[in-house]
Amino acid sequence: MYGGVRGGENYVRVSYMKRFEHGGNVYGKNIRLDFSVNTNPLGMSGEIKNALVNGADKFAFYPDASCAELRRAIARSENTSAENVVCSNGASEMIFAAVRALDPRRALVTAPSFSEYERALESVGCEIVCYDLSEENGFALRGDFPDAVAACDTAFICTPNNPTGNVFDRDIVEEAVKKCALRGGTVIFDECFAPLSDAYTMKGKAPVIRAFTKTHALAGVRLGYLIADEELCGKVRAQLPMWNVSYPAQIAGAVAARDTESVRRASELIVTERAFLRENLSRLGFTAFDSQAPFLLIKGERGLDEALAERGILIRPCENFVNLDGRYYRVAVRTRRENEELIKEIGDICG
Amino acid sequence: MYGGVRGGENYVRVSYMKRFEHGGNVYGKNIRLDFSVNTNPLGMSGEIKNALVNGADKFAFYPDASCAELRRAIARSENTSAENVVCSNGASEMIFAAVRALDPRRALVTAPSFSEYERALESVGCEIVCYDLSEENGFALRGDFPDAVAACDTAFICTPNNPTGNVFDRDIVEEAVKKCALRGGTVIFDECFAPLSDAYTMKGKAPVIRAFTKTHALAGVRLGYLIADEELCGKVRAQLPMWNVSYPAQIAGAVAARDTESVRRASELIVTERAFLRENLSRLGFTAFDSQAPFLLIKGERGLDEALAERGILIRPCENFVNLDGRYYRVAVRTRRENEELIKEIGDICG
Repeated sequence: MYGGVRGGENYVRVSYMKRFEHGGNVYGKNIRLDFSVNTNPLGMSGEIKNALVNGADKFAFYPDASCAELRRAIARSENTSAENVVCSNGASEMIFAAVRALDPRRALVTAPSFSEYERALESVGCEIVCYDLSEENGFALRGDFPDAVAACDTAFICTPNNPTGNVFDRDIVEEAVKKCALRGGTVIFDECFAPLSDAYTMKGKAPVIRAFTKTHALAGVRLGYLIADEELCGKVRAQLPMWNVSYPAQIAGAVAARDTESVRRASELIVTERAFLRENLSRLGFTAFDSQAPFLLIKGERGLDEALAERGILIRPCENFVNLDGRYYRVAVRTRRENEELIKEIGDICG
Repeated sequence: MYGGVRGGENYVRVSYMKRFEHGGNVYGKNIRLDFSVNTNPLGMSGEIKNALVNGADKFAFYPDASCAELRRAIARSENTSAENVVCSNGASEMIFAAVRALDPRRALVTAPSFSEYERALESVGCEIVCYDLSEENGFALRGDFPDAVAACDTAFICTPNNPTGNVFDRDIVEEAVKKCALRGGTVIFDECFAPLSDAYTMKGKAPVIRAFTKTHALAGVRLGYLIADEELCGKVRAQLPMWNVSYPAQIAGAVAARDTESVRRASELIVTERAFLRENLSRLGFTAFDSQAPFLLIKGERGLDEALAERGILIRPCENFVNLDGRYYRVAVRTRRENEELIKEIGDICG
């Protein structure tokens, strides 16, 4: 029951920008609260901000092309070696670089999932196989998933999945990795949201992409990284431009890598606040799907995003995710004050 | 007389990192003066620094993925339209994106030139044709250049050329562009140094890559851009990761684009100081080649870079440039005080 093959002439093209639009596009709008992006609800730490402000004089100079200090700091916090870390200008650059390093012919993505996998795969002319997730099934993987992955040379798995928020069954995922590897293929895990959730990690078992964008609210600074074996790390580096990680990102990242405490505090907050949002959104008549992520997928009537935007609040409409439509929204888990305000405004709109 | 075909099995591989090492690698060294990079000698402006410091609170948020305001500011300063501008995380990202958008089979680079063209071309498995420049000929193009370009589907021309500093003959270059276009090929111009020189621009006649890295000393912030027709701009955008231009870069770039005055002042300074350096280096027994760039190529004895590094000064040894060797060095043109110090130290070493 996994879905149709895409790519090439037969692929129905909606507007390119529309297909790949994401949350966080506050530009040209009058927005006071942004629930359309899923960064750490506690925001960028004061320590990181100070490091950026104090480092501004250095921004005239070339950053370290090898990111030596930053990779050492990340390796320490991730309990790996600096040789197994490659840094990137946000996770999105790493997704593109990994695709180019692997040069896949046929790749699997779950549907729905983060659309940058598809965009990166399309950029190398790869055939894309969509594995359909169904609402009835809680957007879970089914027993046919490992074979579906093994029929491809590359697959992307987002854990917890964006935008559905669920974590996939570990046994099914590990079987998929093994079956794919037996045929020389690679499953890449996007764990950008994992540190802000209770999700298991595939670190050490498969290439894993992570990002400070989400965990330390550094979306503007752009900093992602790959943890993988040295062979793949080398191939990925050859696909990355020189000096791809800016001086601000290297400064902020070195501070962030040491700060596991704010990630832990944010994760605790997210558990409480996600339950608060889920309960209240259910009370207001929405279906709020089970989530282990710093966001919730909800289902209701069309037009909620526009009604909220008129009140200065952004949520993420999900109509450009495959297998979702305009009735679905992704809502970030924020602080209590912000969440209360969201609930109040939705209550006003619905009631 | 243009040189051997490279790429594939027959290509002699020196160490990958060694082949592609650049200037500016001050990391892990004790350096007080860096003549190995060629950024604006006046440094990053106070106005840009203030904008970065004052903007630090925003760095938690996603930057505008479309770079709308920045592209408008660049378009105004470059006298073009925002639809003809694509921004990138430094010029190096744009070199990679342009190569992927054009997907060349056989590409020409001059030798010597900036090695990122080769690295980007290798990353797509392209055959690389080196057009040899010779010292006897002042590193100029010869009459056979247009045909050499036309035999390829893509070519990179750096103007002024890095590291030789000369600007190529305009008639030969324009003929090459025309001959290549007749066969469906594209010549891309790297004009990163052009605004700090008297070089003519190919803007409007061919795709042009520029960067604030050099012109406004924003090397750490990373900001480059392409000026090209809308078709190529669209293809290049499809090869770039989402949010590739950071929030700091968008803030700094919008200020830089309005500041033509500091580029003009730097250009004037460079003319005077380049002559000062050239005269003094010639006096000290070096061959200092004719340059219109914010740097000078000089030739002397081997080991000057190491002797200067012991005194806390970096210059760029040119042994990893094709057709140059350890006797050649690239020296940035800096302020009088810095240039005097360089001359004094070289005088001490040589004398």
